[in-house]
Amino acid sequence: MSSPLLEQLIEALRVLPGVGRKSAQRMAYHLLERERTGGQRLADALAAAVDRIGHCARCRDFSEDEICPTCASASRDVQQLCVVESPADRLAIEDATGYRGLYYVLQGRLSPLDGIGPAELGLDRLAARLAEGEVAEVIIATNPTVEGEATAHYIGQLARQHGIRPSRLAHGVPLGGELEYVDRGTLSHAFGTRSEMG
Amino acid sequence: MSSPLLEQLIEALRVLPGVGRKSAQRMAYHLLERERTGGQRLADALAAAVDRIGHCARCRDFSEDEICPTCASASRDVQQLCVVESPADRLAIEDATGYRGLYYVLQGRLSPLDGIGPAELGLDRLAARLAEGEVAEVIIATNPTVEGEATAHYIGQLARQHGIRPSRLAHGVPLGGELEYVDRGTLSHAFGTRSEMG
Ligand SMILES: [Zn+2]
Ligand SMILES: [Zn+2]
Repeated sequence: MSSPLLEQLIEALRVLPGVGRKSAQRMAYHLLERERTGGQRLADALAAAVDRIGHCARCRDFSEDEICPTCASASRDVQQLCVVESPADRLAIEDATGYRGLYYVLQGRLSPLDGIGPAELGLDRLAARLAEGEVAEVIIATNPTVEGEATAHYIGQLARQHGIRPSRLAHGVPLGGELEYVDRGTLSHAFGTRSEMG
Repeated sequence: MSSPLLEQLIEALRVLPGVGRKSAQRMAYHLLERERTGGQRLADALAAAVDRIGHCARCRDFSEDEICPTCASASRDVQQLCVVESPADRLAIEDATGYRGLYYVLQGRLSPLDGIGPAELGLDRLAARLAEGEVAEVIIATNPTVEGEATAHYIGQLARQHGIRPSRLAHGVPLGGELEYVDRGTLSHAFGTRSEMG
């Protein structure tokens, strides 16, 4: 390699998902040949994000503040709480629907074999939140997978224990699919026609 | 978006080749969820590379020094000069063959319609280099495309003007292909059986 710094950059790029040695090399050359300003901007954005983005104390979504802008907003409906597995799922719902309630981001799904139980998903804090009495509807938007369904079942019971009605997105989300990849129209329809949990 | 810094990171990632909004989003979440240390390392490597990697004054390859390690090395054969289009091509030859001569990186190919002529490829400096009298063989390893062939023809004439024999890689490199993607074995064979230019 003609430059140790270039070699370091190529190795460092491999931290990105799906990027092998060859892609990393092409990315490095592309940045150095044609996008130095964009490369500097990326370096700055990445350093700031890694250093300053944590989790919202209220909803567990990514946030650079103690409480994220959504949770802190006075214009959201505090009676509705939508529970999702990941920040990407939360973003997909926010983008596709007109939902104005709040969110709770599990950062995962129940998976006993991987050692992921209720505590790892912050379900104790979710229970405390439901006990506050503000939430009237828990919209469970976990993925339609085996583990997502088990997680939904658990949260549905939790809601009922606090006298809150749980609902799920309507059929329309493809079985076995990932919420994040559902097209806007389908997701918006499924969200709008969500049904009370049986 | 739950965090302005996250939004900035996603936008900044789109500077990478082939990365659209959705991939950028997945990359950002992956880094924040699972690879913060690697993300910080990438930020540092990128900032250092963009700031400190320039071009070798002798061969035009990427280099963080005025003269790159290859050009500065006492153990390379100064009688052989291999001319390539890009740093990636130089790296492919260095990796696949036992070549111990020097390189000249054009950083492009002749393309009159795009305004890329001899001056843009530093061919004046290449001519000055050949005039120094050290080089005995110019190995022309441009890509086997129309523009690459035209570039090879031009450099072949330049070599002959200085009484130096030009050679080209042997057949084996697929026509219309990009050198960078040729497998090691084919490239090594083609390099070893290069022929004098007709
Ligand atoms: Zn929040
Ligand atoms: Zn050099």
